[in-house]
Amino acid sequence: MSENWLNEVNWSEDGLIPVVTQEASSNLVLMVAWMDRNALKLTIETGKAVYWSRTRKKIWHKGEESGHFQQVKEIYLDCDKDVLLLMVEQVGGIACHTGRHSCFFNKLENKQWAVVAPVIKDPKEIYRK
Amino acid sequence: MSENWLNEVNWSEDGLIPVVTQEASSNLVLMVAWMDRNALKLTIETGKAVYWSRTRKKIWHKGEESGHFQQVKEIYLDCDKDVLLLMVEQVGGIACHTGRHSCFFNKLENKQWAVVAPVIKDPKEIYRK
Repeated sequence: MSENWLNEVNWSEDGLIPVVTQEASSNLVLMVAWMDRNALKLTIETGKAVYWSRTRKKIWHKGEESGHFQQVKEIYLDCDKDVLLLMVEQVGGIACHTGRHSCFFNKLENKQWAVVAPVIKDPKEIYRK
Repeated sequence: MSENWLNEVNWSEDGLIPVVTQEASSNLVLMVAWMDRNALKLTIETGKAVYWSRTRKKIWHKGEESGHFQQVKEIYLDCDKDVLLLMVEQVGGIACHTGRHSCFFNKLENKQWAVVAPVIKDPKEIYRK
């Protein structure tokens, strides 16, 4: 099976690409993460978002611990072919490890970062397995 | 004047941060670019998106050649404080250098990248100054 679509991606020198993940139903930007070639292949094969964790240096099946999987609806590549955009359905409505809907909850107000989104579920409850 | 809000940003080793730019009126993700500390300060001071061009290695006042400025409405920082999200009004309705509304116009369909958004204005017309 041809993998031209994978070869067309402009992977960085370290073999990664940044990924913007947007919620299809709300259009909220949920998070930004990274994929390597294998993570993108696994995302296509499983229909769920699979990333590359730069801190843990391994494949990260989003939701494997929390149950908060991301069902992938659409995948886009930008003009320079070096950024991906995933349109997803966020299972459980929580994308952020802090227990919030989106990771972008610090809003700049009067030159201060104000927390503007509530914790939906205590992370201790999410990750107690 | 305190610059705590700038110091709270987790700049990368090379002093940059990735920036997702979303259109406030449509919620479309327009592009992903980078900022250094100065670009973020200039963005706040001018109210228009200013990026750091990694290819040209200099400050990039978005729209200075095309007239397609981005009026910044809101700025968010993510949970790890290493990604920014800009909510903007896209002047001229064209964010992409290809003359399209958004940079994310390559959609994965049957393991092929299909161009799914039209060119609104010929780039030769945009950049002829």
